[in-house]
Amino acid sequence: MNYPGGLTKNYNKTINYANRGLDLEDLINISNKYYLEIDRAVIYKKPTPIQIVESKYTNKGIEITKAFFSEPSTLDYNGIYKGKYIDFDAKVTKNKTSFPLENLHPHQYKHIERVIRHGGISFLIIRMNDKYYYLDGNDIIDFINNNNTRKSIPFSYIENKGYVIKEKIQPRLDYLEIIDKLYFGGESNGKEEK
Amino acid sequence: MNYPGGLTKNYNKTINYANRGLDLEDLINISNKYYLEIDRAVIYKKPTPIQIVESKYTNKGIEITKAFFSEPSTLDYNGIYKGKYIDFDAKVTKNKTSFPLENLHPHQYKHIERVIRHGGISFLIIRMNDKYYYLDGNDIIDFINNNNTRKSIPFSYIENKGYVIKEKIQPRLDYLEIIDKLYFGGESNGKEEK
Repeated sequence: MNYPGGLTKNYNKTINYANRGLDLEDLINISNKYYLEIDRAVIYKKPTPIQIVESKYTNKGIEITKAFFSEPSTLDYNGIYKGKYIDFDAKVTKNKTSFPLENLHPHQYKHIERVIRHGGISFLIIRMNDKYYYLDGNDIIDFINNNNTRKSIPFSYIENKGYVIKEKIQPRLDYLEIIDKLYFGGESNGKEEK
Repeated sequence: MNYPGGLTKNYNKTINYANRGLDLEDLINISNKYYLEIDRAVIYKKPTPIQIVESKYTNKGIEITKAFFSEPSTLDYNGIYKGKYIDFDAKVTKNKTSFPLENLHPHQYKHIERVIRHGGISFLIIRMNDKYYYLDGNDIIDFINNNNTRKSIPFSYIENKGYVIKEKIQPRLDYLEIIDKLYFGGESNGKEEK
């Protein structure tokens, strides 16, 4: 919503025009807003970091006249749910057979490791093959540690280790339901236990 | 560090040139970097939100050609420490007798309430009268609930309820020491118990 100049929000991601015109970021933002409204969780998207090159003072305040997007060193979304620190990112790929790891920068991978080590919950929401998958940070780390020559995560791994996020009217993507199941002993979301 | 165009980082705050040329944001960023390096906590400043008005495609990627700073709806810093969600902001005032509450937007105040309700730790780091004070979110809420006609927090309240943050070589501002004391039964930081 901060990009009225015709920019796509997922400027560095494959764009998804499927889900009723809403891209993954929109769906997550709407879901987070709903979670906030019903007081279930406090989770926000971080602003996109930019590198300001030129600016000037105007009667409307400081105007940025030249700037570029810069690479985030963490993940895009974080907050708190049931007392737990939550930290995740959203990724979209049109690739049907595997998730290219170039989508996950080394510092982001390190960040996932750190968050988990400090007691937080970290994961990716991956849109792939017309579904939204929750892939837990522990499974991402396991995969990379055991397959450090592979440049992508096979879709079979995501199907096997990940969880399909239910699409609902409210919240649009109920990813906290997966976290309930994995971390708070919640009920199954319909998928068989592994 | 994202403002090479001569901008001050605390564009909407009173600027402090005292502490060896470093402003409060610098001191906190350096402290957070140190905490990260010694693997004590994972806490980052969020990027400053901007409203992009115009942009264009160039051979260096998308160039933002017109943008303005927008008001953040949360606090500037968040992350995880000892499994706890941490969420805080840094404020500077040259006022010697009270901290003007116009420095804390209503949505930020609401955010502090929410974070605490969900089990996180929220606070302000206030630079005032040449010291750095930790003022816990609970004490901020208490003050506002009990004094909702006052437009500022008297310095005596900050001195009484707050904690002076020790300035060290590393970390420059050891605010986690206060959190240890308040939330993890840590040792006193030299201040009398209240």
